[in-house]
Amino acid sequence: MSGPAQIREDTDRFTVDAFHRGDFHLVQPARRGHRAGTDAMMLAASVPGDFRGRLADLGAGAGAAGLAVASRCPGASVLLVENAPEMANFARRSLSLAENGRLAGRCSVLEADVRLPEAARRAAGLADFSFDWAIMNPPFNSPGDRPSPDALRRYAHVMDDHDVFQSWLRTAGWIVRPGGGVAVIARPESLQAILSGMHPYFGAQEVKALHPRTDRPATRIVVRAIRGSNKALSVLPPLFLHAQGSDRFTEEADAINNGRASLFGD
Amino acid sequence: MSGPAQIREDTDRFTVDAFHRGDFHLVQPARRGHRAGTDAMMLAASVPGDFRGRLADLGAGAGAAGLAVASRCPGASVLLVENAPEMANFARRSLSLAENGRLAGRCSVLEADVRLPEAARRAAGLADFSFDWAIMNPPFNSPGDRPSPDALRRYAHVMDDHDVFQSWLRTAGWIVRPGGGVAVIARPESLQAILSGMHPYFGAQEVKALHPRTDRPATRIVVRAIRGSNKALSVLPPLFLHAQGSDRFTEEADAINNGRASLFGD
Repeated sequence: MSGPAQIREDTDRFTVDAFHRGDFHLVQPARRGHRAGTDAMMLAASVPGDFRGRLADLGAGAGAAGLAVASRCPGASVLLVENAPEMANFARRSLSLAENGRLAGRCSVLEADVRLPEAARRAAGLADFSFDWAIMNPPFNSPGDRPSPDALRRYAHVMDDHDVFQSWLRTAGWIVRPGGGVAVIARPESLQAILSGMHPYFGAQEVKALHPRTDRPATRIVVRAIRGSNKALSVLPPLFLHAQGSDRFTEEADAINNGRASLFGD
Repeated sequence: MSGPAQIREDTDRFTVDAFHRGDFHLVQPARRGHRAGTDAMMLAASVPGDFRGRLADLGAGAGAAGLAVASRCPGASVLLVENAPEMANFARRSLSLAENGRLAGRCSVLEADVRLPEAARRAAGLADFSFDWAIMNPPFNSPGDRPSPDALRRYAHVMDDHDVFQSWLRTAGWIVRPGGGVAVIARPESLQAILSGMHPYFGAQEVKALHPRTDRPATRIVVRAIRGSNKALSVLPPLFLHAQGSDRFTEEADAINNGRASLFGD
C-alpha cells in the first residue's frame, strides 16, 4: 500500500486536502466526480458534539462527512458506505494517511449500494438497528440543476428525487436504532421528497436552511430527525453563510465548517 | 340591518377592531372562536402588492385576511368563503361597516364548505379556474397544540392534518386558474401536509418561516405557490417578528402587519 508521500506525487489523479483546519485529511479525485467541501462539513456538523456510538455515512464518497464526524466526536465510530469502487478506494486511502491516525482506527469502509433491498442490505453488512446515527448527502440529479422548460423532464426529475430519498431513507430507517438520529443535506427543492421519505420511520424533524446571505434564498437544507419519534416537525433559525458584502464565512459558519461548533447548537 | 353605532353597543358578543392602522375594521366574536390577528395579516401580505383580479379567502372566518387584501390592493375583488353561519354573519357585518365603504363593494361572502366535492362545490358558486388567487388559514387541530405522548392520538392528528390540507388545497387547485397563486399560513408541523396537498396542482412553492426572534424556532410558516408551475420549491429568508430583547415588532414586521409591505417583497 502506498504511503502518504507517494500518494501526493500522483497529482494528476488526486489531491490530499486538509479539513477542520488540518484536523483530518482527505484523498479525493483531482478532476472528476464530486469533490467534498462545505456540504459535507455542514452535514457532519448536524451530529451533536457529544455523540458517542456507531454512525453510518451513507453514500460517503471519499469519506469527508464521516471523517469529519470521527474527527469532531472522539466517541464516534464511523462506517463509510460507498457503492462506487473508485470512491471507496479514495476513502480507504484517506484512512491510510498518517495524518488521520487519530481517527482511522474508528473508521472503516463498506463497498455497498445504499439502495439494496432488505435481505441483500443485511447480507452486505448493514444489520437492522445496528447504528446510532446515519448521515447522507445523496447525489444531485443533474436535470434539476438547470430547471428544464420541458414538463416531462421536470416531472421525471421530481420522481427520481422522490425515489432517491425514499430508498436512502428507508435504509436509514432500517439500520438506525429507535431513538437514534438521521441527517440529510440536500437542495431546497428536495424538501418534500425528504419529508415524505422520512415517513413513517423518523419524527421530530428539524429543518435548517442554509442561506448564502440574509437576503438570498436557501441554497441547501439540512433535515435532522429521530428514529421512531412522534414529535412534530420544527423549522429552526437558518444559518447565513456570509455577511452582507463579504465573500468570507461569518464567524458562526466558519466555526461550524471547521468542526468547532454544531449546526444545531448541540 | 344594524349600523356601526348599534353594533358597537353589544360588547358582550362582539368587538369592532381596527386593522392596517385603521384602513379597515372587523366585526368579530368577543369571546368565542378564533379571533383574527397577525396570522391573517401575514397571510394577506403574501399576495403581491400589485395584485389585480379575483381572490378567494377560503375559510375566511370574520374575513380579516380577505379584507386586508382588498384594503391593500385596490384592484382586488374578494370572495370570503366561510362555512360557519355565525362567522359568515360577522363577515357580512364587517362589510356593512361605514368604515369599510372603500372596499366593501369589492367584497362578498359565500357560505360554503371548502371541502365540498367537485360537483357540490361548483353548485355552491366556486367555479373551476374562476379565481386569480386563493388564500387560506385552515383551523388548527387542537391535539397538536399540546403534543400528545399518546402515539395513536399523535398519528390521528397527523392524518387529520393531511386530510385538511389535501381537501382545502384540492379546492384551491380547482378554482384557481393556471398561472394564479395560492398562499397558506400554518404551523411548521403542517409543512409536509401542505407540500403534499399542493401536489400536483401547484409548483414554484416558496416557503417563508416566521420566527418570533432570531434564535427561536418558527411559530408559523407561509407557503406560496403557482397553479400549474413546474418550477422547483425554494426556501426564502425568514421573517423575524421581534428584535432581541423586545416585545415590539421589528420595523419590517410592523410594515407587513399593517399592509405597508409584502411578506415576499413584491
